[in-house]
Parts: sequence; structure tokens; C-alpha cells
Amino acid sequence: MERAWIISIGTELALGQTIDTNGGWLARQLAALGIRAERHVTVPDHTGAIRDVFVEAAAKGDVVLASGGLGPTEDDLTRHALADAAGVELELHEASLERLRAFFVARGRRMPETNRVQAMIPCGGRAIQNGCGTAPGLHIVLRGTPCYVTPGVPFEMRAMFSRDVAPALAAAGRGQVLLSRRLGTYGLGESNVNEQIADLMGKGQNPGVGTSVSFGVVSIRLNAWAEGRAEAEASLDDAEAEIRRRLGDIVFGRDDETLPGVVGRLLAQRGETVSTAESCTGGLIGALLTDVPGSSQYFLGGAVTYSNEAKTRLLGVSQDVLEARGAVSESVAQAMAEGVSRRLGSDYALSVTGVAGPAGGTSTKPVGLVYIGLSSSTGTVVEPWLFGEDSPREVIRHRAAYTALNMLRRRLGGSASEGSVGK
Amino acid sequence: MERAWIISIGTELALGQTIDTNGGWLARQLAALGIRAERHVTVPDHTGAIRDVFVEAAAKGDVVLASGGLGPTEDDLTRHALADAAGVELELHEASLERLRAFFVARGRRMPETNRVQAMIPCGGRAIQNGCGTAPGLHIVLRGTPCYVTPGVPFEMRAMFSRDVAPALAAAGRGQVLLSRRLGTYGLGESNVNEQIADLMGKGQNPGVGTSVSFGVVSIRLNAWAEGRAEAEASLDDAEAEIRRRLGDIVFGRDDETLPGVVGRLLAQRGETVSTAESCTGGLIGALLTDVPGSSQYFLGGAVTYSNEAKTRLLGVSQDVLEARGAVSESVAQAMAEGVSRRLGSDYALSVTGVAGPAGGTSTKPVGLVYIGLSSSTGTVVEPWLFGEDSPREVIRHRAAYTALNMLRRRLGGSASEGSVGK
Repeated sequence: MERAWIISIGTELALGQTIDTNGGWLARQLAALGIRAERHVTVPDHTGAIRDVFVEAAAKGDVVLASGGLGPTEDDLTRHALADAAGVELELHEASLERLRAFFVARGRRMPETNRVQAMIPCGGRAIQNGCGTAPGLHIVLRGTPCYVTPGVPFEMRAMFSRDVAPALAAAGRGQVLLSRRLGTYGLGESNVNEQIADLMGKGQNPGVGTSVSFGVVSIRLNAWAEGRAEAEASLDDAEAEIRRRLGDIVFGRDDETLPGVVGRLLAQRGETVSTAESCTGGLIGALLTDVPGSSQYFLGGAVTYSNEAKTRLLGVSQDVLEARGAVSESVAQAMAEGVSRRLGSDYALSVTGVAGPAGGTSTKPVGLVYIGLSSSTGTVVEPWLFGEDSPREVIRHRAAYTALNMLRRRLGGSASEGSVGK
Repeated sequence: MERAWIISIGTELALGQTIDTNGGWLARQLAALGIRAERHVTVPDHTGAIRDVFVEAAAKGDVVLASGGLGPTEDDLTRHALADAAGVELELHEASLERLRAFFVARGRRMPETNRVQAMIPCGGRAIQNGCGTAPGLHIVLRGTPCYVTPGVPFEMRAMFSRDVAPALAAAGRGQVLLSRRLGTYGLGESNVNEQIADLMGKGQNPGVGTSVSFGVVSIRLNAWAEGRAEAEASLDDAEAEIRRRLGDIVFGRDDETLPGVVGRLLAQRGETVSTAESCTGGLIGALLTDVPGSSQYFLGGAVTYSNEAKTRLLGVSQDVLEARGAVSESVAQAMAEGVSRRLGSDYALSVTGVAGPAGGTSTKPVGLVYIGLSSSTGTVVEPWLFGEDSPREVIRHRAAYTALNMLRRRLGGSASEGSVGK
């Protein structure tokens, strides 16, 4: 089993009104199992179009992964189309109907009659249990080719693929394995990162190395092809070590590790706490920190002081300083960090005050100017940053939040590599 | 010319390492020209795979739009594959070669010999000029079907499509125009929304009506096909009015309007202010509110009180209540909202305290239990919500934040339709 066809079903996808992320996610999972995505097809919610692509995919691919069109509405046509393609009828799957009813009962609701269709599966097929939503998935062998169909909701699809589909494919896969690794960096622009690893990024190298950037986080992607997982892992380890040697502590983590997650891990390891005082980021740093499960261990809380009055009332920033220096100033960033630290008794406090735009900039305080403070037992440091006058508000806010988190990360011991923590 | 096939070419796309945005963009442009994207196919940089999909697309579609694989490197194979599909040779296009050389001269560089291949086009084809990069595009009629191929770099592709391809398609197009509209709703599940508009969602209706859901926001998408824009707009207006009549004030906005944006607009119209007291959402409501430009007009700030001590120190929640009722309780939600409102003097205050999980749930206070408070001059209302024990932390947090914003929206006068505001 080497060649997979991936099918994404939905009129909103075909019309370009929703960007499909399921196809890419599935392709990456398949690659790690030694199965290459040979073709990815998107079709609208139309029975004939869906049926045709299933027939073609089953004829040309070794396995078919499809998502979308399993909802309870009249434009959810995937199960009908799949039955058509297989030349069979749909039949009621009692166990799935029971699970559906239980899903609604658990939420204190009556199951709408329209949801009943979600318990119908093509004769000869199998239901794939859905732990997070109403629609079960479908597994059927079409002209000798296994087809797995899940709902289009990404977290439902991912959970079902990982629990039910991946183990079956892992047993069947036999191609060259592709393993990927991502290194997250913060603190240098993408061109500067590229300059330092240019010789590793040439065409045809194995592992292949490429970069991408989002909100100032430059990600380095490594792709290693090998006969087996161990060999691929070893070649990724070598490449990672070389890149870390060159880039030092701008590398904050690997794969799904996020900057807030790494900061949290470092704080938890040290048994220390942080609090926040946010103006232009409006709560974003707190939201990022608390997106990490278990963050109550190290995040105490903070103040969102968007107005000057809030800075005074919640954090004790003096009105004199606000008037003399302005809300966007080094002095106010310092007073905010120290104010929240004093009130909550945290080991560290981060503060942010700046001009996120698009309006509100002046010649001396342009859009993109942000003061970021870090307070601790050894005092308070405030850094001025200029995130680009032309950048959208969203970019300036995220860069301010990440830069604050990165200041704390470097203070806590920097890089996420096992070797460098605590050195 | 009514049915288009869209082809995206690139191994990084097929492997899911880069998310394709070209396909969606092209589908939207085509729809506005009266051409439907019938199928969207992604294939890796492999001559046979690319050739096969061109042959299939030319046989089944009325027009083919492709992007990617026109670079100067060895894995850029689209022009060879297209010549294969047409059964012709590649030939040097002198004018394109001149343009290529001039491109490099203008940048003070000599053209690398490898770039010469970019001036090769299939016999019988035409070069499409590229104003922004090196690779010209290709236009060829394959078995009677016009095929347009551009580089994969989005801004090059978009410029070439708009300047060269769109005018040709507009002249040839004879299909109907598609205009789309989205209505955002909050407060009912997708199945319940569907039940109320099921008769509008039938297959083949015009406008077509479909729904999708993200973090509890159920979006209703209307697609109207018509001979002209005015007619399409009128039919969208009629459908929107009917849906609003049925769903009432769960409809919060249209097209790009967001729940935080609508709340902001209503507050600004009334000259009123809001503050926030967030526990399990950790600053997310503040971050959502301040994502809207101009939010300083109505958002004063708030407290992120993740720990019990923060609830006491920043908001004055009594330790007795915290001990007697627990942090996740109606009493604490009420004290949080009233505490922040008193401190900041806002007209409204929202509070959230709950169990976001995955750990921390108990039999009486399970994961997903969230108390949401809304305080105003007329008193404080607290609602208990249960967002689903199996839902990921991210979903519970977003649903809690949106539910809080929606409570405030309904309080402020509800729906975003011109007609219903203030009624």
C-alpha cells in the first residue's frame, strides 16, 4: 500500500469559501506511515461528482481517505455517493443510532429526526466511531481498495484518523518512510535564518530543509526519507543538532512545541510563576499562556489595562507618569510590570504597552511601537520594539505577545534542547 | 464555458507541507465570472501525474486553470507534462527569452543557464507574460479545452490571472454570476439551525443555502446564481430576510462581521463601555474584543484572575465565598463581574469562571462547566453552561468567550440587521 488518494468534500471548499486543511494534515500523517499522497481532489457536495471521484480513486489508488459531507443536512451527500459507488444500499446501523441518541441525551437535548441519517452506512461497510461529534465515519472496501471517510470537522477527523485509521494503515504500509520535524525559532528574520543554513537547504538533499514564517516565528522544516523510522530519526537528529549549533538559543522548540508551551514548561520545571499586564495586546498573552493545559500551575493572572484609568486603578500606575510620558512609554511599561507583580506576588511579570494601529500613531510614537517589560526579583527591564508601521494590527499584536514571551523564555534558560537547558 | 477544473502542482502541496491558497482564490474569481469550479486537484511534481490530470481535466472540464511547476529547477515539470498531454514538443519562445534576460539585467545579474527552460513553450501554445517574476505562464488549447497555466507564487499567479486570463474568460463565459453572502449566528446548534431552514437548504435551490460551524458559531452561506449582479443581490436580500425572520436574534452579522466586532459596534453606537473578568478564558475575551480596531472607544480593560488569589486581590472576591462555593460557581462569577465593574466603572462587565480541562473536572463540576456573568446597572445575571466534557480545551475556552460576548450582544439589542436593531 503505497499510493493514497485524498478526497475533500464540500461546496464551500470547491468554491474557495473555506480553505481545506484536512487534506494537508492527512498527507503528512500518511507520509510518516510510508504512504504517499498521490493525488488530492476537492469536489462540491454533489452526489455524482463525489461518486465519480470515489470510483476513480479506488481504481487508481491503493487507499482512499476522504472527509466531509457526513453531516445531518440535505447537502451532506457523501454516504449516499459512496453507496452509489459501491453499488449497494444504505442500511441503518443500530449501534451508531444508539450512540447518536446518547450524544444528545448527554447534552440534555432530543435528537432531531434529521440526525438519524448519520447512522446509515453502506451495506458491507463499517462505522468508525466518533468520540467528539455526531457523525460516525465509514470504512468500506471499494473494488479492492480500502476507503476511509470521516466528517470534515478537523478535530473530529484527526481523532478518528489517529485512533482507527492510522493503526490499520501502519500495518499495511510498505513504502519509504518520510519523517518530518519542525524547529521553531524566534528572534531573527527569515532571510537571516536562511543565510545561516543556506548550504543545508539545497535541492535534492536528504533531509530536505526549508523555512516559513508566521507572526515572527520562523519555522524550519526537515524532511527525511529513509527505509525505516530509526534511520529517518537518526538523520533528523543529526540535522537538528547542526542547525541548533548554528542558530543557538533562537531555537525555542520542536514540532508542535509553541512559545507559550515552552515558557510554561520552563516555569513549571523551576517552580516559578508569572503574571501579565497588557495594554495593546488586550489579554492575548494571557490567552496564549492559558491555552496550554496545566497553566494554572505557573500563571497567576493579570490585568488588561486598555484604558489609562484601568492602568491606574488595577495596577497603580501613577497618573503623573501617564500624563508626563504617555501611556506608550518605557516608564508606563515598567510601572505596569511592577504593579502586577506586586499585587499578585509572581516571580516574573510581563507588560506590554504600544500602538497596534491602524489609527493612533504619531510621528514620535508610530503604529508598531511597543514597549515590553519584564519584571523579576532582580529588577525590571523594558525593551522598545518597532514592529513595522505597515503591518496589520493582528501582526503587531501577535509579535508583541510573542516577543514578550520570548524575553521570558531567554531569561528562564533559553533553548528547548535537552542539552542547553540549564547550561 | 461553465465548468472549470483547477489544478495545483507541487510536491510540497501534495505532502501537506504547504497549504494551497491558489485553488480557493481561483475558484472565487471564477464564480464571480459565472464559471463553477467543478473539481480541484493537487498533484506532486511528477511528469506522469501532471500529464494525466491535464488530460482528464481537458476531457471533463470546459476550462482548466493550473498553477505551479514552472520554475527553473529539475523538479519543475509542468511545461514538459503539458507538452506530453498535447502530444507536441517544447520550443524556444524568443520573446520570452529576451524578457527573461532583461529581468536579470534589470537586477544587475546574469541569467543562469538553468532559467533558459522557462522560455520553452509547447508548440501551438502561447506565453502569458509575467510582470512580477521570471516564469511566463502558458496558454494552450488541449483537445478543444483552453488551459491556462501560471507559476505557483500567489502574487504572480493573481496578477497574471487578473490581467490576462480573467478578461478572456469574461468574454467567453456564458454562465451565470455567483454572488455569496454569509450570515453568522450564535446560540443554537447546527442541527437546530438546519431544522428551521431545512426547506431552504434543498438541493438545486437558488440561492443555495448551507451551514458550517466553528467554535459554536454557525455560519449560513448563501450562494445566488443569476444572469447579473443586481439580480443575484436581490435574491440574496430576499433569502437573508427570510432566514432572519425565522431565526430572529441568533443572527449576529453578515459576511466578515464577527461577534466581537458586532458587540463593539453596538457599544460604540450606544456610547457605552465594557470590562472583563476572566478565569478559564485567561484573557481570550479581552483579546477578541481588542482585535477590533477602535476598541479603545468602548473596552476599558479587565482582570485575568486565573488563581484564587488573583480573584481576591484584583477583584475583591471574598475568600469566604471562594472557599464555600469554589472558584467555579455562580457566586464567584457574580462577584468577579461586579468586582471589575466597580473598579473600572464600566456600563457592562462580563465574567467567566469554569473548568476548561482536560484535567480538573469532578463529578459535580465536570470539564466544560462554565459560569458566565453579565453585570450592568440593572444587576447581575449568571448563566451556567456545559460545553461538553469531551471537547478540547480550545473549544471550551472559545465557546465560553463567544457565549459571554453573545450574552452582551443580546442585551445590547441583539441582531445586526438594520431593521431589527432598536426594535
